[in-house]
Amino acid sequence: MSELHRRFVLASRPTGLPVPENFRLESGPVPEPGEGEVVLRTLYLSVDPYMRGRLRDVPSYAPPVQIGELMTGGGVGRVITSRHPRFAVGDVLEGLTGWQSHCVSDGKMFRRVDETLAPVSTALGVLGMPGLTAYFGLLDICHPRAGETVLVSGAAGAVGSLVGQIAKIHGCRAVGIAGADDKVQWITGELGFDAAFNYKTVAEKDYRRTIASLCPAGVDAYFDNVGGPLTDAVFPNLNLRGRVSICGQISQDNDETAVQGPRHLFHLIVKRARVEGFLVMDYAERFKEGRAKLAEWLKDGRLKHREQIVDGFENTPQAFIGMLQGENTGKMLVRAAAD
Amino acid sequence: MSELHRRFVLASRPTGLPVPENFRLESGPVPEPGEGEVVLRTLYLSVDPYMRGRLRDVPSYAPPVQIGELMTGGGVGRVITSRHPRFAVGDVLEGLTGWQSHCVSDGKMFRRVDETLAPVSTALGVLGMPGLTAYFGLLDICHPRAGETVLVSGAAGAVGSLVGQIAKIHGCRAVGIAGADDKVQWITGELGFDAAFNYKTVAEKDYRRTIASLCPAGVDAYFDNVGGPLTDAVFPNLNLRGRVSICGQISQDNDETAVQGPRHLFHLIVKRARVEGFLVMDYAERFKEGRAKLAEWLKDGRLKHREQIVDGFENTPQAFIGMLQGENTGKMLVRAAAD
Repeated sequence: MSELHRRFVLASRPTGLPVPENFRLESGPVPEPGEGEVVLRTLYLSVDPYMRGRLRDVPSYAPPVQIGELMTGGGVGRVITSRHPRFAVGDVLEGLTGWQSHCVSDGKMFRRVDETLAPVSTALGVLGMPGLTAYFGLLDICHPRAGETVLVSGAAGAVGSLVGQIAKIHGCRAVGIAGADDKVQWITGELGFDAAFNYKTVAEKDYRRTIASLCPAGVDAYFDNVGGPLTDAVFPNLNLRGRVSICGQISQDNDETAVQGPRHLFHLIVKRARVEGFLVMDYAERFKEGRAKLAEWLKDGRLKHREQIVDGFENTPQAFIGMLQGENTGKMLVRAAAD
Repeated sequence: MSELHRRFVLASRPTGLPVPENFRLESGPVPEPGEGEVVLRTLYLSVDPYMRGRLRDVPSYAPPVQIGELMTGGGVGRVITSRHPRFAVGDVLEGLTGWQSHCVSDGKMFRRVDETLAPVSTALGVLGMPGLTAYFGLLDICHPRAGETVLVSGAAGAVGSLVGQIAKIHGCRAVGIAGADDKVQWITGELGFDAAFNYKTVAEKDYRRTIASLCPAGVDAYFDNVGGPLTDAVFPNLNLRGRVSICGQISQDNDETAVQGPRHLFHLIVKRARVEGFLVMDYAERFKEGRAKLAEWLKDGRLKHREQIVDGFENTPQAFIGMLQGENTGKMLVRAAAD
């Protein structure tokens, strides 16, 4: 009956798509908090595209996870022991727990989750990092105006599904690109996207024409989660003064070679268009603003979301790999412990 | 002794680098002005990279030149006959004359050139479209701040040579990329660039390292005239919040195939960087401001410029082709008539 502390460490670096063997499960006794610390029991873990980048041993905006080191990631957990002045047993906190069943924290970089607002899992989705990514990446980089066409790739994912809805809230026409018919159904049927297509049923050479037909007035703003051939096909469809927000390039994340593609910078001259990359962390000072807006829209029913929950901490690597392969609709989560 | 009206029309569309035979010289009597019109005798013609795009029969920001049609281009000319209320015989005007020895104009889209300010040829260079392109493309798109590193490709050309100097005027470190040792000499020796290199003497695989060594604090702003492998090598050297101004992509202008290159949008995420294309025409309402600043710097000696003048109207196609091949240092002009 005694509870174990379980954790996934990086066992080896993946080449291409990660495999479960890249992660090693270790276990030991549940830790005790030091003075000023809490111990959390992880309730939910988030698996996100950015994690693929952390497995690569190259400098980036964050250091890579080292071999033998705890795998990085966000989670929510309930305080089970506390020697912290502000956090009590029973509190639910959200932060970078890493892939582990329990987490010792001094509370810095963690925030308390309001359980009365929405289920705590939403702190990892619509009211968490993916929600804030959609909010700031669309509104601050693309500046969508009513009547404009906003196109989003990865449109049935945790971020993309919110981007289209936030575009609709701002009076735009929202068009999505997703990788399965049921995803297209979901975003157009339930989420209110004006149009969408399943890129897996369209030949690559027809991407451009398909986008043109679904965006008859051109693309004013493009929120890019995937990169690659889909993004190539967007550039010639950009309108004058088009704006492109580069959130992710998941199509290339598992590619270790220097991927080639058509050169498209000249489109930016013709269209006087702008392409900008961003990281949600840069908006940390405005998270409160973003979260309040998202919570308001969620409460009003203007923002819908879906969670795809994989049960069992031990299945975290598989959930991560599945997410990278587009198996999720909405936000992919791991339920690490029954609450 | 009688003066002829000579004009170059587009004879055929080039594939790859244009050849003189793509242009056909026609001649006829010097035209007479209608009511409200002037006739100009062309003094100087400008040859510019953008003209290559006009030879291609694809939609762009301006319609292509049609076969048999007068070749487009800017020039300065002196009024030799006038039936225009505001322009008198002897006035020098600048505007889109096209490649011809004489030009009939109603004066719209033409402006009077102040002969006392500087030689009239500067109206096509440092005080004309190239000067304004450097001014707005650097200041408005890149927002250079004192102490930052500004890198420019095509650095010994009409635009690039001014970009580096304007960067210096704003307290930046200016680094140039050019295609000949004497160009490198000129921009570092006479124009005050802090560093430069001749890309033709560096292997393509070493571009990235060379840029890194000349920009030890990274690249904060990149003004791109050329595109292609040089630009690819800049992306990994961008600093956090780097800005890239896409002015031209001359390396690909003569390439009719869909050119491939490494995908680099992920760099924009890592660096939260921005890439933006622009056209100088979009700043028409601010030309007066730009021209005043450029004239002030020119007068102060803070801005130096060089003109490379090809003599003889009949040599316009060769001057154009030479410019596309990088034969010019500074602004390439054709002296169409002795004044």
